[in-house]
This record gives sequence, structure tokens and C-alpha cells, in this order.
Amino acid sequence: MTLRGYTAPLSPDGRAGIVPPPPWHYSGDFLIAEYRTDPNAVAALLPPELGPAEDPGAVAAIFADWQSCSVDLHELEDPIQSQYREFFIVVGAKFNGRPVSRCVYIWVDKDFAMYRGWIQGFPKKLGSIHMTRLFAAGRATPRLEPGARFGATCTANDRQVARMVVTLEHVSKTGPTVNDPPMHNTRHFPAAAGDRPDVFELVRAGGYDRDVTEVWEGSAELRLYDDTLEDLQAIAPREMLRGYRFSFGYTVGGVEVVAQHQQEALMT
Amino acid sequence: MTLRGYTAPLSPDGRAGIVPPPPWHYSGDFLIAEYRTDPNAVAALLPPELGPAEDPGAVAAIFADWQSCSVDLHELEDPIQSQYREFFIVVGAKFNGRPVSRCVYIWVDKDFAMYRGWIQGFPKKLGSIHMTRLFAAGRATPRLEPGARFGATCTANDRQVARMVVTLEHVSKTGPTVNDPPMHNTRHFPAAAGDRPDVFELVRAGGYDRDVTEVWEGSAELRLYDDTLEDLQAIAPREMLRGYRFSFGYTVGGVEVVAQHQQEALMT
Amino acid sequence: MTLRGYTAPLSPDGRAGIVPPPPWHYSGDFLIAEYRTDPNAVAALLPPELGPAEDPGAVAAIFADWQSCSVDLHELEDPIQSQYREFFIVVGAKFNGRPVSRCVYIWVDKDFAMYRGWIQGFPKKLGSIHMTRLFAAGRATPRLEPGARFGATCTANDRQVARMVVTLEHVSKTGPTVNDPPMHNTRHFPAAAGDRPDVFELVRAGGYDRDVTEVWEGSAELRLYDDTLEDLQAIAPREMLRGYRFSFGYTVGGVEVVAQHQQEALMT
Amino acid sequence: MTLRGYTAPLSPDGRAGIVPPPPWHYSGDFLIAEYRTDPNAVAALLPPELGPAEDPGAVAAIFADWQSCSVDLHELEDPIQSQYREFFIVVGAKFNGRPVSRCVYIWVDKDFAMYRGWIQGFPKKLGSIHMTRLFAAGRATPRLEPGARFGATCTANDRQVARMVVTLEHVSKTGPTVNDPPMHNTRHFPAAAGDRPDVFELVRAGGYDRDVTEVWEGSAELRLYDDTLEDLQAIAPREMLRGYRFSFGYTVGGVEVVAQHQQEALMT
Repeated sequence: MTLRGYTAPLSPDGRAGIVPPPPWHYSGDFLIAEYRTDPNAVAALLPPELGPAEDPGAVAAIFADWQSCSVDLHELEDPIQSQYREFFIVVGAKFNGRPVSRCVYIWVDKDFAMYRGWIQGFPKKLGSIHMTRLFAAGRATPRLEPGARFGATCTANDRQVARMVVTLEHVSKTGPTVNDPPMHNTRHFPAAAGDRPDVFELVRAGGYDRDVTEVWEGSAELRLYDDTLEDLQAIAPREMLRGYRFSFGYTVGGVEVVAQHQQEALMT
Repeated sequence: MTLRGYTAPLSPDGRAGIVPPPPWHYSGDFLIAEYRTDPNAVAALLPPELGPAEDPGAVAAIFADWQSCSVDLHELEDPIQSQYREFFIVVGAKFNGRPVSRCVYIWVDKDFAMYRGWIQGFPKKLGSIHMTRLFAAGRATPRLEPGARFGATCTANDRQVARMVVTLEHVSKTGPTVNDPPMHNTRHFPAAAGDRPDVFELVRAGGYDRDVTEVWEGSAELRLYDDTLEDLQAIAPREMLRGYRFSFGYTVGGVEVVAQHQQEALMT
Repeated sequence: MTLRGYTAPLSPDGRAGIVPPPPWHYSGDFLIAEYRTDPNAVAALLPPELGPAEDPGAVAAIFADWQSCSVDLHELEDPIQSQYREFFIVVGAKFNGRPVSRCVYIWVDKDFAMYRGWIQGFPKKLGSIHMTRLFAAGRATPRLEPGARFGATCTANDRQVARMVVTLEHVSKTGPTVNDPPMHNTRHFPAAAGDRPDVFELVRAGGYDRDVTEVWEGSAELRLYDDTLEDLQAIAPREMLRGYRFSFGYTVGGVEVVAQHQQEALMT
Repeated sequence: MTLRGYTAPLSPDGRAGIVPPPPWHYSGDFLIAEYRTDPNAVAALLPPELGPAEDPGAVAAIFADWQSCSVDLHELEDPIQSQYREFFIVVGAKFNGRPVSRCVYIWVDKDFAMYRGWIQGFPKKLGSIHMTRLFAAGRATPRLEPGARFGATCTANDRQVARMVVTLEHVSKTGPTVNDPPMHNTRHFPAAAGDRPDVFELVRAGGYDRDVTEVWEGSAELRLYDDTLEDLQAIAPREMLRGYRFSFGYTVGGVEVVAQHQQEALMT
């Protein structure tokens, strides 16, 4: 008998792995606040392979409320295997002279999504995340109309991370821009012992069969809190840009390695 | 200065209460499996004021995925104050010769919804609850069409409570029926000391401005587990009836007391 | 057949209630930081029956890590029914000229402890609470010795509530003092409809068979955060007093009603 | 400026990583039930490098309640960074003719412990885990004496995983034996794309400065549930052996690679 699985735990039937094999389908609702922060603080979060973006202090704070599944869709009828929410912070950068984006911090509320993120270069921690939803009946729901307010919060490690409100104004002509260029994250997995990670590579995220609804745009409020384990004050908003709300879906088959990071001593 | 609040904790600004004052708006998605169980087990869960229903073993197992708010809607932009999911078991009964329904067990995943439930006669415990959702983009979502499968699970107190799948067939002509008659629950609050509760009354739930979408109907699968703190095996399915999926909203201003329960010694 | 239970949900076997009947045994570890805040803010949190304490701005911020059970001890072997952690804020006051204490805000991480709190006049909300523990082996534990640091955190409703560190100096001669006088809380349960609560009474907490270890004392650090649903800034520390760490157990059979609160319109 | 960290997220100050650099100190309480299951089911969970143990169906079901920290101990005063509970299943095996053990499934309740586990070859998923504790005061605690009962439960993915009770009889002469030989787990990290994992190696766990209390021994009850994502029925108890309760601490600096697994196509 052979142990099977795309990820551990490997098992005879291959069903025990924390993440099923790709490709994965994703359907989600998004709430985004774009803003400008200190460009030096953004630069300090980039690896040496990436340079500053055209708008070097631009940041996107992104809440997403997801359902995802394997190609056989089996997780959809067992929603604890498919639903999760996340909050992440994306900055702009350049790679080989072309615009890219990069996820610098991210929190999620399920284990399979956390580990699937690490495989793709998203350094996910666990958090509690909430985001206003649309419902098809009753009054306890906003509607997609001017003045509607959508909010979101994130807490992690008994610390408040972020609170956001977007007030819709109109359908957007541009949509969000900071996270638009292809994301270039770092896949990192430590060695069994010692300072040099076994996996430490710059990867480009992709995805296909992209499907997006109308994007609503409006004003954005965002607070990043001061007592987190990550230094979020360094990249806190100095100037708010616009907020966005939309639904989006795509399919992901993996990521593409574009460079090996220099494996210098990072631990000290 | 006066302490204010609809519920404790009372505070000078009245904002600290765990539940804000009614009326409350509700918007939710529902997944229901109706089935028949042992009529004697249903009867054993009714207070003396209620008699058996026409179909005395009929039960509805209900998952609901809610957003709720006060009339000023302020919770909608702070979704941790408005979102919750619950699983509950409803049986049929008669009160004064007329059909009623009654919630015998219920689990929910937020504190404000738990306590607001107790105020209305829903004896809510905490649980982890998940339910398949519809999304507006991508492939990781069912659609409202024949063959679509919606699932749901509930766990509480480190015990598995329920797992349900409904496979849609067509738009329903009748909708669910077990939980249709007015719900007659028991408001119960123990005394500071001793056996006789301070509040122990049969109440009729109401609500107005009801708003419902098309109801989809199909086959239903349901498993209630055997190691719960509540005796769910006594009311486990003997015959599955139909499953339903729809969205529903209404507004609730309180409940109406229809009888005082006899305050006999229940504790022993 | 008769429905049984000290609390709902009532059931034929009486085992389904969210809280089993008293008396209840408690065993816990405590971490306390005493401090002084604005006396007017403390006074604003007292009901009219209570007057200011001798030291009218004194407050105790208390973390507790509990195990509790019924007299037959059955919850001890099913620890999800017995373990919980809580954070609460206690102020001093006077009732009929005698010193008392009062819990103004409290968060807990289990449903049974939350509802049992409401029965006794503790207006508990859910939170995530952590507190340094002692272990009997290894190096990942403080010891009861000068310089040992014990920390604790509380988050609720996606908001950071409190962070505390106590650095032990020596065994205490006095122990904590703010929460020493008998606690006088308010039992409150709303009516089925309308403004006047069904239960609204001042109660004195008791307990017997008190068992306490040596109390260690030291310096205390405490931060209450600024974005909570409750106005914690009003009662934030102006002057830190001492910190304490000890274990404590007792048995509680109920609380004693000492006054009916005036049932004025509190909701508006 | 250089991005720093033992794990991602890398940051200028190196404090953002989900796991701090080794070595790590551990202090924990253990509850273990040993039993025999189908030897073929154990064999089916071993990689080709490992052969059957002397007692080929012997299994240890282990609950652990941990506190851990870096060598500077800073996590101890921020307990959400140090405390976690886990449940794992360990089988016996042989490697190069010598007895070893292997963790086949494991659940944990914190993200840092989950990811630190993956680094060491423990394929951790998230779960809710509870385990009876000892307290220093009061009656709501067992004592280390004959007849004391310690229980534990684990739930994951809205599914019940395990429930255990150990009833103490006497101080053990042998202690538990299944997990005594050095643990040989598999470090596994998928590639950016494709079937061949980037990391797929057999590692031997170590640790030093081991510190253990007296081990109590007694009878053990264990139930593994039937609706998990992992096939736990295959390794369910056929014959219960003994139960154990003790505290244990050690320090871990990493694991040692003893073999590269064959990278055959495991995903299909």
C-alpha cells in the first residue's frame, strides 16, 4: 500500500491531507481600502529582488470572505472545508522593471486555507475576521447603492489588527489598482535544522477563469492598531485613497517560481 | 447619572449591553430538513400546556446563517455585532387546539445572539456551525438549480451535533411546514436561590415585515450524533421528509406571554 | 413525563440544561492588578443603592483561569464542561454604609459559565482570554519566585480589551483588597416585551469552603484599550497599585437578594 | 535593510514570523491511552522506510496541554503566544531494525504550534481540545491519587475526533511505552507546482534537558469517532491497554534528517 496525499498527513486513501490537490476554485466577496503610507516602510518590507512601485507608498488593505473547493466540488457540501475569511495587506513593487504586488501580512480563520496559503507564498496566521454581507431578504443587509456602508474587522493573537468601513458611492470605472499587478510572494519553509531555509523562492501567483462582478467604489476608513506582533504602525495610513466592494472568482493551479532568494542568515 | 441598557452590563451611555433594545431586523439564509421521529420522544419534550401535533412525530432540523441589527442599523457596519449562524430543532404541537411549533434545542455561534435568544425563549448554547453559501462569482458556489447540494454541520461542547445535505430539485409549492405555525417557546430564568425559577412562561414568537425569497425544495439527508449532552438519539430521523433552501427576513419587537408554566420542582 | 432542568433547555432526563443545579465547586488561578482611576467614572457605574467606597477610584482588574463542577464532580472528567477563563473589572462601593465590591464588566470563554454568570448577576460577554500558567516540569513555565512574570490578555468582539503583566516580588501580607468585600451585582433579565425588566435586583454573592494558597505580590502593568464597545477609557488606570497571583477555590450555592432595583425606564 | 525571520512573514525587525527561531522550551501535562488495533491498519500508515514494530498493532492516543517559549522566555508573559493543547496518535515502527515511533495524525489549537509542527514533521490540523487539569485549591480538581479521573476531548472540522478518560490507580513503574522510541516523522512541503514535493524527508525528533514528574498509571477508555476526514475507524481500539498521566518538559533545537523519501507520484 502507498501513502497518498498532496499534503500531509499522508494516508492510504489520500483523503486525510490538510489541503487537497490543485487546481482549486475560489468564489469570494471583497472589501478593499487603498491608502498611502511611508514609502520607506513599504520598501523595508520588500525582498532585494523587488524595487519600489511607481506610487511607492500605496497600500491595499483587503478583506475577503471566501468559499473554495477542489475541481470535484466536494467541499461545497461540507462548508467547514470550504469557507474562510481573511485580511491581508498588499503593497506595490517592481520586478525586472514591471509592476508587481506583494502580500506582506495576512490573517485567515481556517487551517486548510492557512496551510494552502503557505504553499503559495502567503504567510498566513490565524485571526478572527468579520465582513458585512449582502442578503437576499429582510432589512438587516446593505444593498449595492450609494450610501451603503460595509465594515470589517480583524483580531489575531488577542490583539486588534484592523477595522475598515467603505461607504459606497458609485460603480467604479477603474476598480482597485494596488493589488492589480501579479502578486510576487515568497515561499519559505525552514530546514530541519540550521539557518538556511529549505524553500525560499520568489513566486508569481496566477489563476485563470477570472470572474468579477461590478465593482462599487466609495470612501474608505481604516484603522490599523498599535499593539500587534507585526509592526503595523510603520505602514499605517497617512492618506486614505478609495474603497471598493465586489465579488470575484477564479481557479488556481499553483504558482510559478521566478527567482531563488539569497539564503543569507536571516535568523539573527 | 443613570445606568442605562436594555440588558446588562448597564452603563452611563447605554452602549455596553450585550443586546441592544428591540425591535431587531433579521436577514438570513435557511437550510431545512424535515423528518419524522418517534412521536413519544417529541411528546416528552413538550410542556404540559402543549399537546401533540396532527403529525406528532414531525420535526424540522434548521440551519440559519443570519445578519441582524437594531433599527438604526449600526451593527451592519460592524459585522461581528450582526452576524451569526445557528442550528435548531423544531417540533410541532398544539396549544388551545391550534397548531404551534416549538424549538427544543438550539446552538448559535455568538454571545449577543445567544442571550437575545434566551430573552425570547430560545435555550441557546454555543456551537460551531457552517452552512454552504451562494456567491456571485466564480465556480466555488452552488447555484439555485436542480442538483445543487447545500450542506451544513454543527458541533458543540467538543461533540458532533448534526450534519445535513439538501439536494435541490425544484421551486417548492408549499415550503417547509413544521416550523410554520407560531413558535411557542419557554422563557426561563432561575431565581437567585432555590428551585422555583423567577421567569418561567410560555411565549408566542411573532415578527412582522416578513420577506421571503423563492423556496427551493429537494431531498434531505440528516445525521444527528450519539454522544451529545442532549439526548438527540431519541429524536433522530426515522423517515426523512423534504429539504428546503431559501432566504428570509423579518423584524421582531418582542414575544407575547401566553401562559405561566407551573413552577413545580424541576431540578430534581 | 416531566421536563426537568435547573436551566433550559429542559428535557426528560434533566441533563440538557446549559447550567447544572447548584451548588457548584470552583478551583482557579488568579492574576490581579489593582489601580486607581477617576472616582467619578466609578461612581457612574454604580446603581443608586450603592455609594462610593473609601478609596472611591480603586479598581481591580482580574484574570481567572477556572475549573468548576457540580457536587457529583461529573464535569471534571469532561473538561469542556468545566474549564473556562475570564477577565473582569471590579470596583469598590458601599451598601448601607458597609464596604462592598461590584463587577462592572466581565468576559468569559464558555457558554455555561456565561449563563451561570448572568444567573448570579455577572453580565458576561464572550471573549478570548489567556493567562500564564505554572507547570510541574520543564523550562517553559515561571516559578513562584521574585522576578517571575505572569501575563494575561483579553479580546472580545474583534476588539482588544486588556493586557496585564504582574512581576512577582514576595509573598503578600495583605492580598488584594478591592474585591475583598462581598460582591453586590445586579441580576437583570428583560421582560418578554416592554421596558421594565422581569428581574432587576441587587444581589450579594457568597460562597463557602474557601480555600486559598499563598498570595504572591508584585508590580503590575495594565492596559485597557480604546476601541471597545464598553467605555473602558473612562475607567483606565491613572495610578497603578499592586499586582497579585494566587490560587483559590470555593463552593457557591446561589446569591442573596438584598434589594429590588427601581425599575425606571432604562432603555431610552 | 534586510528582511528577517526564522519563518515568514519576514520583517525588518524579525518579530513578525509565525514561529520564532529554535531552540524552544516546552512544559506540558500529558494524558495517554495505549491500545491495540489492527496491525495492518498501522502498517498502512507507515512509509516504506519503516517496518512493523514488535507489537505491531500498539497505538498511543496522546493529549497534551502545553506551554512553550523561546530561550529568552518572552512568550511566557504573553500566554497566547505560548499556550496550546493537542491530541495526537502515535504508532510504533522499526527503522533500520531499531524501534521508533511515528505520529500519524495530530490536531492542535494554535497557529504557531501548528506551523512549528509542520516544520518538525507533525502534520497538524486545527482542533478544539480540552483536558482535565490539576489546581492548587478548591474542590473542582482531581488529585493525584487512586480513583482520580482525568478526561479529554478533541473535535476538528465540525467533527468529533476523540474522547478519553484515564482513571488513576498507582504510580507507574514503566510509564507509557509506544511513544518512547525516537519519533520518526515526515517533513513534507509541496512544490510551487506539480506532483513532487520540495521537502519530503524522514526526520528523527530529539530534544534535550528532559524533565518528567512521577507517572501515574491506570485504566483507560478511548473512543475514536466515525465521521472524521481521516479514517480513524481503521485504527480504532480493539483492546485497551493502560492509561498514563504526568508532566513533562524538554528543549528542542530542530530535527535530524535520516532519509529522503522516494518522491513518487503521491497525489493520484
